[in-house]
Amino acid sequence: MENSKVSYPMTTEIISKEQLLAHWQGHRSLTRRVIEAFPEDQLFTFSVGGMRPFGEMAKELLAIAVPGAKGMATDKWETLNENVDLGNSKQKLLEAWDQATEELNHWWAKIPTGHFQDTAVAFGQYEDMVYCSLLYFIDNEIHHRGQAYVYLRALGITPPNFWER
Amino acid sequence: MENSKVSYPMTTEIISKEQLLAHWQGHRSLTRRVIEAFPEDQLFTFSVGGMRPFGEMAKELLAIAVPGAKGMATDKWETLNENVDLGNSKQKLLEAWDQATEELNHWWAKIPTGHFQDTAVAFGQYEDMVYCSLLYFIDNEIHHRGQAYVYLRALGITPPNFWER
Repeated sequence: MENSKVSYPMTTEIISKEQLLAHWQGHRSLTRRVIEAFPEDQLFTFSVGGMRPFGEMAKELLAIAVPGAKGMATDKWETLNENVDLGNSKQKLLEAWDQATEELNHWWAKIPTGHFQDTAVAFGQYEDMVYCSLLYFIDNEIHHRGQAYVYLRALGITPPNFWER
Repeated sequence: MENSKVSYPMTTEIISKEQLLAHWQGHRSLTRRVIEAFPEDQLFTFSVGGMRPFGEMAKELLAIAVPGAKGMATDKWETLNENVDLGNSKQKLLEAWDQATEELNHWWAKIPTGHFQDTAVAFGQYEDMVYCSLLYFIDNEIHHRGQAYVYLRALGITPPNFWER
């Protein structure tokens, strides 16, 4: 280093863009297995304490992930639309989930790395720094999936291990 | 920039170390309010589907946060000890939570920023990249707190808003 003309800073990055995508997709893979663990007749009906069935929560997660990444990639935000018609079908939900996995990879690649420290109005409604919105999307998935774990336990079903992604 | 002798790279950091601490402490602040929302006689007893009461889960979170940050700061890891004696007291749990908030700030400041991309054996047991272990700690808190939301709803109690940190 003493002989080099330009000095580079030490890598002090907490997490890279690629690592953050892998982290999210790992969570999404676990959420997919949680969806799979529900009996079809309970996925869109079973509830504890008056909360939404997990199938409805999963539709919210679908409404956020790809449109969220697309918004960050293009800086054009559409309003949040959680009312995707999947006919209360577990199979259709899983197919939509898998399609979203591919589309998320596609849009993620187009997000400029420097954009995470910008401010944006996510879904035309939620103004925050982009990294905060992104973490909110992931955290919201973990939050609702944690609720699905209780639903599954209440149904007498052992959920997938939290640590397997 | 054309006239400068040294060129600096564009900021392409996803999230800074300080931002990540603020993110975690924001979550911890919400978890504190979830603890507060439980009636004392339910915090260490109420359960759905045979799962642990939330007071027990909160003890797990305490066992992870400060010892986890201390391990990352010192590279010396003790084994995980979830059996802190709080006498099933909500007040003692909240006091331990507040003490952990201060201690987390203390140890966080001592974590070398470059360490997040190292590999470590967290708690002498879980080998992973440090940023992965760190995200696991936070995600585990979100996961269990999401379960507490179901407990509160099942008890007829409105939980704090997820988006308020």
